[in-house]
Amino acid sequence: MTGRFLRTLRGESTDGVPIWLMRQAGRYLPGYRKLREQHGILELAKDPRLASEVALEPLRLFDLDAAIVFADIVHPLEGTGVPLRLDPGTGPVVLHPVRRSEDLETLRASHDVAKETAFVGETIRRLRDATDKPVLGFSAAPFTLACYLVEGAYARDFPEVRRMILGQPDLFRKLLMHLTGVVIDYLRMQERAGAQALQVFDTWAGLLSPGQYSKFAQPSLSEVLTSVDVPTLYFSTSSRHLLELQASLGATGISVDWRVPIDEARKVVGAPTVLQGNLDPAALLASPEAMEVAAGDVLRRLPRDGHHIFNLGHGVLPQTDPQNVKRLVDFVHAHSGGE
Amino acid sequence: MTGRFLRTLRGESTDGVPIWLMRQAGRYLPGYRKLREQHGILELAKDPRLASEVALEPLRLFDLDAAIVFADIVHPLEGTGVPLRLDPGTGPVVLHPVRRSEDLETLRASHDVAKETAFVGETIRRLRDATDKPVLGFSAAPFTLACYLVEGAYARDFPEVRRMILGQPDLFRKLLMHLTGVVIDYLRMQERAGAQALQVFDTWAGLLSPGQYSKFAQPSLSEVLTSVDVPTLYFSTSSRHLLELQASLGATGISVDWRVPIDEARKVVGAPTVLQGNLDPAALLASPEAMEVAAGDVLRRLPRDGHHIFNLGHGVLPQTDPQNVKRLVDFVHAHSGGE
Repeated sequence: MTGRFLRTLRGESTDGVPIWLMRQAGRYLPGYRKLREQHGILELAKDPRLASEVALEPLRLFDLDAAIVFADIVHPLEGTGVPLRLDPGTGPVVLHPVRRSEDLETLRASHDVAKETAFVGETIRRLRDATDKPVLGFSAAPFTLACYLVEGAYARDFPEVRRMILGQPDLFRKLLMHLTGVVIDYLRMQERAGAQALQVFDTWAGLLSPGQYSKFAQPSLSEVLTSVDVPTLYFSTSSRHLLELQASLGATGISVDWRVPIDEARKVVGAPTVLQGNLDPAALLASPEAMEVAAGDVLRRLPRDGHHIFNLGHGVLPQTDPQNVKRLVDFVHAHSGGE
Repeated sequence: MTGRFLRTLRGESTDGVPIWLMRQAGRYLPGYRKLREQHGILELAKDPRLASEVALEPLRLFDLDAAIVFADIVHPLEGTGVPLRLDPGTGPVVLHPVRRSEDLETLRASHDVAKETAFVGETIRRLRDATDKPVLGFSAAPFTLACYLVEGAYARDFPEVRRMILGQPDLFRKLLMHLTGVVIDYLRMQERAGAQALQVFDTWAGLLSPGQYSKFAQPSLSEVLTSVDVPTLYFSTSSRHLLELQASLGATGISVDWRVPIDEARKVVGAPTVLQGNLDPAALLASPEAMEVAAGDVLRRLPRDGHHIFNLGHGVLPQTDPQNVKRLVDFVHAHSGGE
């Protein structure tokens, strides 16, 4: 039955738990690796023909229930006119990090985000034409974008971000407000292009204490998540201490990382809010038998209330064997029916 | 009043909250940096005269309530005969990671850990002679040592470790059992040398789900924490989801990272278990005024039950201004008296 993914997000009954995988299009796939021999990540992402090719590869190989647009989390930052580059292994590098209010002024003289990132919309349109599977768009959350803008690049536990939150809270709040507008424009553009659901990646939210999360991240997230009409999914990691707050963000679903048993998460996040997750991506590095034991454990913990999407607790790791991904998808379909 | 630190660990009344700081001896201090110009970290740590010099520097500069031996977390691994090196910025690099049961056999042909690491004992004896402040010894926890042995070096979220836990659980359990013996020998040697309390650093415990923690980490920790007679402190990060399990490990105190408000932690970890923490180390990068606001917030959250040690939620960051550390220590002493 098609439509399992969207039906679950709409609270309608399905014939089984839908499954898609974060980074289902990525370095573990032979076609993607071949394209990367000739093109940089941003080059791929900015060419809608190639980007849709990348997004379709896992759909041809595995019986997944959703496609996700191939794009990079830095696109909305590019739209703000900030000079940056992508370093392999490191991720986004912002050449002039935001540290003082003057730096914010530069940001404010910003571009038309939806126009600057129109290639993402074009990829979504191509995907809608090419597949019957629902197409998921996405953006990084304002807080996670702010982490890169303030720190300059990934640094363990982002000390400069925490310094700014404690030492220049007003500056940080202004930065978040600005990025909230950027993210909303970016997501609405994807919705107009035909994205049928949108995921917000707040990878670094777990750095914050609950007090900081409710003061800084939560207001911007509530704005973002209520600014679109399609269903939304919210993802973060290392954030068990924030789960109570995340339950009331207004997202259609919360994506849980592998550290928290999903039945425990369900005690905090009540139905009908969808829970998404949460097999440890490292299970796909183990033997097929061990992988199935771990996947079976996640399935057993899913309360059979129909409000679940099977996924990993984080993205597919580059060293994953595609055969194990196929086996996982088939296993979930075989063992989650009859709801 | 001297003795605040040990009195708190013994459950006795004090005239104020004791304070020491993880990595209080380190790269932010001028004397340490000068020594590092001429010596590698392991060279410093293995020379008891220099190592005690390093440990005493912060005691001369700040009114801290405890000294901590200067040593590296890899010393117990060196005792097992595993070839490794320390890379600046990366940390321990294990040249032949443990991946198969044959690799475990190599480990088993192990050395006399207490003898191989006797220099740490000698540093402790020198510290006891040189200061009236209590001297804290430490070790990495068996699980955190296992992370380096299996992964080979720090890697974000240690995927090979998680693969082994899911795919080769018996091998991982055997490795942990072996390391448990190593850590116990190492800590007992420090106790015999005069350490008056011992901290166990389980930096990477937060990777584990509660089920994995209770199956793998907990049994080894309970053995370790009950194998010595002096009071013990247990530290981990990103581990709010494990706090309920940590409360029953048998440690005298639990060190809480900055993400969890310490009054929330107290609801989970009942008195008389000591709570240690938990100012965000990034607060020391902010202005003195902002730092005091953040430290005041931690002090306000400390229930005045006498079972607390003020510390950071993680180690002092290298870019910290020593003047701010002095201000923090004086602030805590000035605002935590009268208990």
